[in-house]
Amino acid sequence: MSIPAGTGAELHAFATRLYPICRSITGNGVRETLRLIGERIPLEMQEVRSGSKVFDWEVPLEWNIDEAYVRDGDGRKVVDFGAHNLHLVSYSEPVAQQMTLADLRPNLHVHRHNPDWIPYRTSYYRRSWGFCLRGRDSDRLREGKYDVRIASSLQPGSLTYGEFVLPGRSREEVLLFTHICHPSLANDNASGMAIATWLGAWLGSQPRRYSYRIVFAPGTIGSLCWLKRNEKRLSRVRHGLVLGLLGDSAPLTYKRSRRGDAEIDRIAQYALATLDPQARSIPFEPYGYDERQLCSPGFNLPVGRLTRSVNDGYAQYHSSADDLALISHQQLEASFHACQRICEIIEADRRYINLSPWGEPRLGKRGLYGAVGGNSPAMREHAMLWLLNQSDGASSVLDIAQRSDRPFDMLSQAATELEKAGLFREVRNAASGTTEFRKVVSRAKPRKSKAKQRRKRQ
Amino acid sequence: MSIPAGTGAELHAFATRLYPICRSITGNGVRETLRLIGERIPLEMQEVRSGSKVFDWEVPLEWNIDEAYVRDGDGRKVVDFGAHNLHLVSYSEPVAQQMTLADLRPNLHVHRHNPDWIPYRTSYYRRSWGFCLRGRDSDRLREGKYDVRIASSLQPGSLTYGEFVLPGRSREEVLLFTHICHPSLANDNASGMAIATWLGAWLGSQPRRYSYRIVFAPGTIGSLCWLKRNEKRLSRVRHGLVLGLLGDSAPLTYKRSRRGDAEIDRIAQYALATLDPQARSIPFEPYGYDERQLCSPGFNLPVGRLTRSVNDGYAQYHSSADDLALISHQQLEASFHACQRICEIIEADRRYINLSPWGEPRLGKRGLYGAVGGNSPAMREHAMLWLLNQSDGASSVLDIAQRSDRPFDMLSQAATELEKAGLFREVRNAASGTTEFRKVVSRAKPRKSKAKQRRKRQ
Amino acid sequence: MSIPAGTGAELHAFATRLYPICRSITGNGVRETLRLIGERIPLEMQEVRSGSKVFDWEVPLEWNIDEAYVRDGDGRKVVDFGAHNLHLVSYSEPVAQQMTLADLRPNLHVHRHNPDWIPYRTSYYRRSWGFCLRGRDSDRLREGKYDVRIASSLQPGSLTYGEFVLPGRSREEVLLFTHICHPSLANDNASGMAIATWLGAWLGSQPRRYSYRIVFAPGTIGSLCWLKRNEKRLSRVRHGLVLGLLGDSAPLTYKRSRRGDAEIDRIAQYALATLDPQARSIPFEPYGYDERQLCSPGFNLPVGRLTRSVNDGYAQYHSSADDLALISHQQLEASFHACQRICEIIEADRRYINLSPWGEPRLGKRGLYGAVGGNSPAMREHAMLWLLNQSDGASSVLDIAQRSDRPFDMLSQAATELEKAGLFREVRNAASGTTEFRKVVSRAKPRKSKAKQRRKRQ
Repeated sequence: MSIPAGTGAELHAFATRLYPICRSITGNGVRETLRLIGERIPLEMQEVRSGSKVFDWEVPLEWNIDEAYVRDGDGRKVVDFGAHNLHLVSYSEPVAQQMTLADLRPNLHVHRHNPDWIPYRTSYYRRSWGFCLRGRDSDRLREGKYDVRIASSLQPGSLTYGEFVLPGRSREEVLLFTHICHPSLANDNASGMAIATWLGAWLGSQPRRYSYRIVFAPGTIGSLCWLKRNEKRLSRVRHGLVLGLLGDSAPLTYKRSRRGDAEIDRIAQYALATLDPQARSIPFEPYGYDERQLCSPGFNLPVGRLTRSVNDGYAQYHSSADDLALISHQQLEASFHACQRICEIIEADRRYINLSPWGEPRLGKRGLYGAVGGNSPAMREHAMLWLLNQSDGASSVLDIAQRSDRPFDMLSQAATELEKAGLFREVRNAASGTTEFRKVVSRAKPRKSKAKQRRKRQ
Repeated sequence: MSIPAGTGAELHAFATRLYPICRSITGNGVRETLRLIGERIPLEMQEVRSGSKVFDWEVPLEWNIDEAYVRDGDGRKVVDFGAHNLHLVSYSEPVAQQMTLADLRPNLHVHRHNPDWIPYRTSYYRRSWGFCLRGRDSDRLREGKYDVRIASSLQPGSLTYGEFVLPGRSREEVLLFTHICHPSLANDNASGMAIATWLGAWLGSQPRRYSYRIVFAPGTIGSLCWLKRNEKRLSRVRHGLVLGLLGDSAPLTYKRSRRGDAEIDRIAQYALATLDPQARSIPFEPYGYDERQLCSPGFNLPVGRLTRSVNDGYAQYHSSADDLALISHQQLEASFHACQRICEIIEADRRYINLSPWGEPRLGKRGLYGAVGGNSPAMREHAMLWLLNQSDGASSVLDIAQRSDRPFDMLSQAATELEKAGLFREVRNAASGTTEFRKVVSRAKPRKSKAKQRRKRQ
Repeated sequence: MSIPAGTGAELHAFATRLYPICRSITGNGVRETLRLIGERIPLEMQEVRSGSKVFDWEVPLEWNIDEAYVRDGDGRKVVDFGAHNLHLVSYSEPVAQQMTLADLRPNLHVHRHNPDWIPYRTSYYRRSWGFCLRGRDSDRLREGKYDVRIASSLQPGSLTYGEFVLPGRSREEVLLFTHICHPSLANDNASGMAIATWLGAWLGSQPRRYSYRIVFAPGTIGSLCWLKRNEKRLSRVRHGLVLGLLGDSAPLTYKRSRRGDAEIDRIAQYALATLDPQARSIPFEPYGYDERQLCSPGFNLPVGRLTRSVNDGYAQYHSSADDLALISHQQLEASFHACQRICEIIEADRRYINLSPWGEPRLGKRGLYGAVGGNSPAMREHAMLWLLNQSDGASSVLDIAQRSDRPFDMLSQAATELEKAGLFREVRNAASGTTEFRKVVSRAKPRKSKAKQRRKRQ
């Protein structure tokens, strides 16, 4: 797979367009974001009305914001939402009042560690309001009266998410999930949104064995809405991946599904290990993004997460320093490449049964083998011997690649040749494959005993 | 849990009272020992008659001893049971005769390695007699005639053991077992008897989920008698611990049950590891104390052993050097504390199922979560997320503590809060828990289809 | 087990007799080889006609060779089969023609790495011919005409293999397999043929629990013929070992069966580890010798391979440098000893159930234990305690040896004593043993309840 030159630059440019939009878990910022994505890949838009029950939750009122600021006695805006989305606590209720600094203080938030950064705060489920500002600016505020204005609305409306669905030969689905609720934060998650969009476009141009469903939804309540609306279809999800924090300088990291040994876990770990020796695999834990919901015990979907930093693992996390300088062309491109590679293996990994499992079949007469025995069979022939020996229905090509320490692509290609030669038959999964293989192995015997019975009768 | 100041001193003082009594597997020394223990905790005394069949064994004649000595030609006692209990081979038959040194020699035993120590010897099941003495004293014996007198009795009587039973809310039992057959040996097992007694008193003062049964019995034949008398009740034993060698300077050591992965194994290993980084866990082996019988393959009880040295692992083992100076306040107290901690975890470890397993339930509306999303959820909230995610009936709180690397007590407390909030229900064990959880997960669906059917009918 | 002095020398001498014969997968060289082996151990000869179908294969025409050479313009033989068997590509078709050097070149093969070595080449399944020669000789050939003569025959005939069958008390078999198709190559496989022959002679002189079947057959097609003829008897194969490459200086190496955890795997790994700390155990891979066929997924026999070098693992592999100097007395003898040791453990490893599993049985009253309790039970008594504790039908003596880190022979002997004392009963395998043990454990209860019923009736 080659990435067109400049994919990293394209991803960064798209993240740059997404970055300034003021997103939250509902509202027009989300819709504007989906509209931009929709310019690249056709999205089905879903609206879930405020007040809708979703499991233990309820879709909140829709929040929109026009302007918000704090003005001092001189009429100077000391905090201004117009200057940076993060200045306003997300879901702040409307305010228009004059206050003393002392009364205002409890509603002002600064970053715990860095006086130059604006922290990111939300208050979705408790009516409240607040401003976030740089510590050094906060320290400079003088006693006096301040005009506080938040021109927000909290009205019955809806939560919006978008889906890009690509049908494949199978109805089984690969679920790709990314959160779209964060305002001006570049790594979290303009990076994930850009990569998911580009991945969708690329997948659309490829032949597909599986169907793909890329969901762009607000975190937590958005994925719960998606789960609720798709509850009966969840058994179709064969593999899944949550995409987030994909532009920073931490090494590529795969966070395993709650199951820990799902196919996606083996595929993603293999893909990352072969792409980058620095890549990490970390166990599931119930924090992070929408894997929290997708992997809750009532669903327990085979969904992992591709990330670079873990949520809390970089200083700039949830602050204004998570900006466009934090994410680089190179890292975005490598993350995108990893997603492609995972999808390629998902597509190519198959289980076969060997239809000629008694001894090695003659490869030579099928044109699959050099006819003059030399010092050592060639790589491709070795790959075939491994496949023939191990394909008893229980092992996939990836399993065999790992057991034999041979490249997946070579084995996958050799398996296709064995299938064409009539030596292999694809099976659906380990359980049915094992059963089918047992039938193949025992098939000869009844036939023989029938022949014997016939002879005896004569 | 705080230990009253001076618990170590109290334990040592009680061990000091037990130390001088001449115990054996039967006889009045055992009864006197149980009487002293009974001053602290009310014991039920059990007598098993000589000749009673217990599995492959038979309760021997009861042995008692008045005096025993070897007197030289000058009338001087060169070996005197009055000076130290270990001078006489336990279960020596009565003797009153004059012998040459040459005839006496085969009945004299010295310590293999240390000429200053009296070895400890027994001859329970072969009629015999003998004296044990310091090597340096043995070397000084001169040729000549010796008067040998052993005023012992071997008569039909009984074997004695004592039980302290503490009922709990459940009939399931925690079995604590300690051997009481050794005469003047401080670590082996005045230490274990003292700690078991104090543990009984402490458990009596606590609310109890499980019933507790503390058995004070002679080694081997005593535990076999207990097993025989309780054969039908053994399925009640949920956890068990043999206590012995708890006062010496070796690190706290847990010897796993024969099963190796019983709940008590995980609990005791966790308790010790969190109490003391030097603590050891060693695999089961069929030597030691009554775990040999309790973990024989016909019973295979979930019983481990708490010890410091392993049986043979200290030089003074089974000699007069295993005296009150070998055991210290500090070590006794730390051993006692470990026992308490194991019991606390036994009491507190539970399995729950999450009754709201579809996505994360809203902690905020139940007052379980901070309402303003900050940089990182607090420890307690993390604990809840772990519990909610993992409580599918198969995992106990301790399992989750180990998986999440978070403190057991914090998780245990958070689980109680989740139960109070109606989000958790306790289940009995992994098998039934898994079944119950599956029912919860599938519950919604029939309800829905009923609703559908109703709509269709209309 | 002691090896008669000079076994290594005898093995080398026999390999020296086998070495010069021109073997292939069919023909009189194979028959002559089997005749020599038959002088030592009585072989049943099997002939499988050319054209016979064996699974995916067919027995080829029989190949025999009289003489073969290439003569230059001066009448000098520049390559002469008479000088070394390897000079002729095995299965070369008859040729008698004059050729230019340029036309001849494609039929001349040299060693890839060493100009002093003749490579070994075959062309069994594609009609073709060729000569192999030293690179330095090939370089010296001058332009001109050459007379090429190969006086071979490719005629309907048969493939020959030999079996040495030693009945034992059980019909279950131990299968020993060695390939006999290689011409003048000493390590590969005069070494294996010699050791298999000596092993047969030794096994014939021993009492045998299992039946033994030593198969001397051409590689691949020979083992396929054997598998075909024995297809219905394969379930009798309890353990198996392929023998090859046993004389070189690489450490003793066990290549595990495809199953990876068969009894033979545990036995061979244990035997080698206790014989030689340098010994290696390597996983199964589908290259090598007849384990490729015996462990193909349709058969999946419990067959490992004993080797020194792995196939490709020594420079001289498949060249004239694999000569009698490469294999040493000492290495042959140590390989033979390892085979014996594996057979000894195969014979001695058993599973027992403890018939007195409630507590420890009294060893003393059965004369199995010292009666005076001392400082530490002796090794033999420890062995008995381990056996008694672990023999619940699931574990074999070897399992217990490994778990207890005690010598197999000591445990095996102690188990025999326990069986004689009526405490142990042998069981067939882990599954039936577990069932039988459960019956023993539960036996007491019905008896008791009958007694109770009787009392109630009275």
